[in-house]
Amino acid sequence: MTVAVYLPVQDKTQFWVDMLQSHLPGWTIAAMDDVTDPEAVTYAVVWRPRTGDLAKFANLKAIVSIGAGIDHVLVDEKLPAGVPIIRTVGDDLTQRMREYVALHVLRHHRDMPRQLRAQAERDWHAIVVPVAPKRAVGVMGLGNLGAAAARSLADLGFATRGWSKSAKSIDGVETFAGPEQFDGFLSGCEILVNLLPMTDQTSGILNADLFGKLAPGACIINCARGGHLVDDDLIAALENGTIKQATLDVFHVEPLPADHAFWGHPAITVTPHVASQIDAGTGGRIIAGNLKTFEGTGSCADLADAVRGY
Amino acid sequence: MTVAVYLPVQDKTQFWVDMLQSHLPGWTIAAMDDVTDPEAVTYAVVWRPRTGDLAKFANLKAIVSIGAGIDHVLVDEKLPAGVPIIRTVGDDLTQRMREYVALHVLRHHRDMPRQLRAQAERDWHAIVVPVAPKRAVGVMGLGNLGAAAARSLADLGFATRGWSKSAKSIDGVETFAGPEQFDGFLSGCEILVNLLPMTDQTSGILNADLFGKLAPGACIINCARGGHLVDDDLIAALENGTIKQATLDVFHVEPLPADHAFWGHPAITVTPHVASQIDAGTGGRIIAGNLKTFEGTGSCADLADAVRGY
Repeated sequence: MTVAVYLPVQDKTQFWVDMLQSHLPGWTIAAMDDVTDPEAVTYAVVWRPRTGDLAKFANLKAIVSIGAGIDHVLVDEKLPAGVPIIRTVGDDLTQRMREYVALHVLRHHRDMPRQLRAQAERDWHAIVVPVAPKRAVGVMGLGNLGAAAARSLADLGFATRGWSKSAKSIDGVETFAGPEQFDGFLSGCEILVNLLPMTDQTSGILNADLFGKLAPGACIINCARGGHLVDDDLIAALENGTIKQATLDVFHVEPLPADHAFWGHPAITVTPHVASQIDAGTGGRIIAGNLKTFEGTGSCADLADAVRGY
Repeated sequence: MTVAVYLPVQDKTQFWVDMLQSHLPGWTIAAMDDVTDPEAVTYAVVWRPRTGDLAKFANLKAIVSIGAGIDHVLVDEKLPAGVPIIRTVGDDLTQRMREYVALHVLRHHRDMPRQLRAQAERDWHAIVVPVAPKRAVGVMGLGNLGAAAARSLADLGFATRGWSKSAKSIDGVETFAGPEQFDGFLSGCEILVNLLPMTDQTSGILNADLFGKLAPGACIINCARGGHLVDDDLIAALENGTIKQATLDVFHVEPLPADHAFWGHPAITVTPHVASQIDAGTGGRIIAGNLKTFEGTGSCADLADAVRGY
């Protein structure tokens, strides 16, 4: 029984190999490229595996995604059919996402970017904003992360609304569901947080059409996937004032290429996919626990739905 | 019956005169410097009145502070003794302070200043920080504002502690009280929020001695009064690394003079006394309500304690 580990950065792969080994002393853990007997591999622990990587293992019982999403696994056209995919979720990830969303919603709400520019000019300029209960904030996607983020925003006092594919109920949050309620959700929304899963239906959802349905000069926070955003539409919307500011944690290509227009844009805050960055210690514990459970029972609580796509 | 209004900025005075007049149609509201019959003045609504301003009014029934603090009134050595002082507090002010404290604690927690510097250098550099439950945040002062801020921090998941003069109990917050528990409160504290009232006992409390008792490289947020902070001690503590970063909303002299070292300091965020900036609409409603109540009953809920000093 071997666990094959792959991440696009080699020293990260070795780091995860060592850490999982420390949590799973009786198991054989190896970097995927060091595996000499593919038939012995029963589990793969991966982030953005290369096409065909997983098809090499004929006896794979499950694939573990190092992260809450599985889209980076599903893009593999040679992905072996029917192998369960285990997501890596947990209180720690949810907590980190709550923090990130609260921070960036508050930053836009109180217009910290403009406040910092005023400081740079030694300008004692008070920016008076509405109080949070008069600020409409919307969260797209009400899974584990989205629901927790929406609840935190409601706790902070924001007029919080949420939208999801199927109807959800969250204390203190006005919820909307399905395509028919999407425009109602967007209408008047001043700060929009995207936490949707990445699927064919949600790809490119943050586009000119959507931006035009928000409150004029709305702010956008994308902490789901880069593919949700149409980059050129955002640049144009910032240009014409439809959107005032954006915080982006995820990008079509990561790391974000050094020559990308987002880096130096005065109205865009770029963070390097850290919103809910799994810290290796906690992530290692969660993944080791899931592997042990799956090995013992043939299933585990964090299985993804490959058909649904998340 | 005349209400005399004074703020240090003349157009603000006129703004408040007009607004209070709109809320109190039967009353005479005048800018203090336009008052021709001082004996007719029964109420004064002030922010930082000049020494002797209030002593001119022999028939003053009450003084209204435009703000939660009354220290800016008490500094007047000629303040008429025994005239009640009405503070301006309310849900709106508390809500704004909660937002400010949550925003700036999260900024320091997730090290946004460093993240923004990385963006400026197009550096895809993930800053991994502990999760909020492993971050010790302390709130000094557990009055209306401090207690609400501490509760919000606990809701966000921070390991929150609070310190006040007399013992308080707040859900999810570890509380300390009095001088004998002060060092225990400070010990290990990584982000410190000051919301103490300004009194002889608390003046200069944010000094080198206190900084040295916090966790090494702690962050400071002062949203109470400028007089709480020993400016030179902060500069020195940032220099030697005892303190990592600070957010300051209040200053010894306001507006902060253009040549003050805080403006351009890379580790200091300056905001222009906006943490709980009263918006004129809400403030006007609260003050008008308090004046009507006091005129009708001879008292009101928001009376300050001049002996205690807040």
